[in-house]
Amino acid sequence: MTTEGEAPPGDAWRIEVQAGAGRYPVLVGAGLLEGLPDLLRAHARADHYAIVSDDRVGALYGEAALARCRRAGLTADLFDFPHGEPSKVRETWARLTDALLEAGVGRDGCVVALGGGVTGDLAGFVAATYLRGVPLVQLPTSLVAMIDASVGGKVGVDTGAGKNLVGAFHAPRLVAADLATLETLEEPERAQGLVEALKHGAILDPAYFARVVEEAPGLLAAEPDALGPVVARSVELKAAVVTDDEREAGLRQILNFGHTVGHALEAASAYRLGHGAAVAAGMVVEARIGEAMGITDAGTAQRLETAVATLGYGLDVGPVDLEAVRGHLRVDKKAREGTPRYVLLHRIGEVDSEGGWSHAAPPELVDETLAAVWRA
Amino acid sequence: MTTEGEAPPGDAWRIEVQAGAGRYPVLVGAGLLEGLPDLLRAHARADHYAIVSDDRVGALYGEAALARCRRAGLTADLFDFPHGEPSKVRETWARLTDALLEAGVGRDGCVVALGGGVTGDLAGFVAATYLRGVPLVQLPTSLVAMIDASVGGKVGVDTGAGKNLVGAFHAPRLVAADLATLETLEEPERAQGLVEALKHGAILDPAYFARVVEEAPGLLAAEPDALGPVVARSVELKAAVVTDDEREAGLRQILNFGHTVGHALEAASAYRLGHGAAVAAGMVVEARIGEAMGITDAGTAQRLETAVATLGYGLDVGPVDLEAVRGHLRVDKKAREGTPRYVLLHRIGEVDSEGGWSHAAPPELVDETLAAVWRA
Repeated sequence: MTTEGEAPPGDAWRIEVQAGAGRYPVLVGAGLLEGLPDLLRAHARADHYAIVSDDRVGALYGEAALARCRRAGLTADLFDFPHGEPSKVRETWARLTDALLEAGVGRDGCVVALGGGVTGDLAGFVAATYLRGVPLVQLPTSLVAMIDASVGGKVGVDTGAGKNLVGAFHAPRLVAADLATLETLEEPERAQGLVEALKHGAILDPAYFARVVEEAPGLLAAEPDALGPVVARSVELKAAVVTDDEREAGLRQILNFGHTVGHALEAASAYRLGHGAAVAAGMVVEARIGEAMGITDAGTAQRLETAVATLGYGLDVGPVDLEAVRGHLRVDKKAREGTPRYVLLHRIGEVDSEGGWSHAAPPELVDETLAAVWRA
Repeated sequence: MTTEGEAPPGDAWRIEVQAGAGRYPVLVGAGLLEGLPDLLRAHARADHYAIVSDDRVGALYGEAALARCRRAGLTADLFDFPHGEPSKVRETWARLTDALLEAGVGRDGCVVALGGGVTGDLAGFVAATYLRGVPLVQLPTSLVAMIDASVGGKVGVDTGAGKNLVGAFHAPRLVAADLATLETLEEPERAQGLVEALKHGAILDPAYFARVVEEAPGLLAAEPDALGPVVARSVELKAAVVTDDEREAGLRQILNFGHTVGHALEAASAYRLGHGAAVAAGMVVEARIGEAMGITDAGTAQRLETAVATLGYGLDVGPVDLEAVRGHLRVDKKAREGTPRYVLLHRIGEVDSEGGWSHAAPPELVDETLAAVWRA
């Protein structure tokens, strides 16, 4: 495993992730997609590659990837779907599945997810359930997907009741994050990814947290020298966590910091609110809950609020329907016996682990904290 | 592991199945459902049990099981769906998932599949994908489900393109087969189960094959003394196979004997043809293919045809659309590079394993064999 700041070998970082009995590499580097056929041959030999992209990424990178695979003698097809979170539902999953069946992709096929977090989750769920499971390769093209979503094997779709309520654990054979694709991202999409980077720092690495805050302007501007090491460090941090706990029985829960409130905010807004904005606000609110419970050091919520402000985020996320937020908290996947669970920090870089990696919180305290922010 | 003919301890057989890192018991006995709450507490502790049944089994056993669980202090709900194979589709899976979400079943919940093969596959796929997977208990109430479907962890649903094309491997925590439920089955449903018993004999145990043929009248009449040991022996045979090869990389393929042609017949009939009738015909036809290839001993197909006749099955399955059968063979899950694979016997009780547990067959030979049967 390379570490932060080290010169990457061959202009790319390689991080190994252990997943159950197997393991897979995460490659981070500029221009990786140019060598896609060789990567597929080396890591996921198959007789038919089903490249899945949304319509935007399909036009930007999918057609080229398809042509490159075919030129190299691989059997490949491109399957696309309309971009955006509303596509991450069972209906799109069913349509893609039917399209793969129609194209004759068999058990020796392989799904290649080329795109952002929506594509990775959706195509990953297709791979997890297609003919009871076929191999998966993740080619993340957004910062969120590189830093977070493509590593760890979680795949799934949303339902009307909330995000990611249907899914599976399906480890990829390979994750290859081509940094060159980040240049075509809009700045707000990069900001969204950097929220997850801040989260990794907040739960595990105070120096990394400080670095992301400090370098925020360059990172938002997609300076390659800045982005490479940040993607690699976040993948390292996440890989270490999911290697320890693939199925989220314990430690992996800490990756949900900010996400209990964040997911409820997203769902309550009917997904008009972006994931980055929701998680940014969620981290601040969950730190306030922790402070009110006497678990999180005073001032931590303020540090988080200042940090997410460098990315353009904060508690002002537009109108919030508190009743809807409460309803979604109750059906959260992480809830136990109907009580939502929160990951609480001791301080930046350290999660409180007394009595487990997540905590119930007094509902009235949660209500008060939410009301103080959004009913003011 | 108890063996055939041995007196069952406590009036029940217990067979252990190894599944990846874990293991689960299969209990076979009369009256097991009466002790359901204790079984659930012992094998699948959960804070909310979602009992899933079709409308028929729900009325026969589901309501009683629900009442028994609630009286014993367990939180439980009953979810039902219209009986029959047409319910084993993604739409029913989505509706059941939404109903569980609505009822507030969380990560510490458990899905209890109470019913035949359709229920086990469908509810099992709900369990496999609900919140990325919750525990599953299988309570098979049909002979097919007891003898075959409930053991081994395969779950899934059909699509317009074929059977079981979407699904997962999701091992149950417990399988409890209450023989008392078999009394309410119609004779044709028992015959269907006994086809799978014959299959187990045909691939693994010639003495068991002969026994099922000999005892067919008593088994079809649901004589409890006859059914218990047969269910237990089939579970033992299947358990040994899936323990060796949970994910069907090798040995497990032999359980597909008769199923390549059988599934194609079912699909080509738009599922008007029952699974038992289809597999019975499939075994005979696949044995003929094997004989024509010089792999299967001459006379084997005839022995199979005579055996399935004792259950009321044969090659006369009504009108067969050969073009549709061929189309479905090509998209069969077991196909490799578009070529269907067949499990071929050496003789009754022994599968040919030269070059692997399944074989490609010359397409023109398959065509001729099919045409000889169904274009005569």
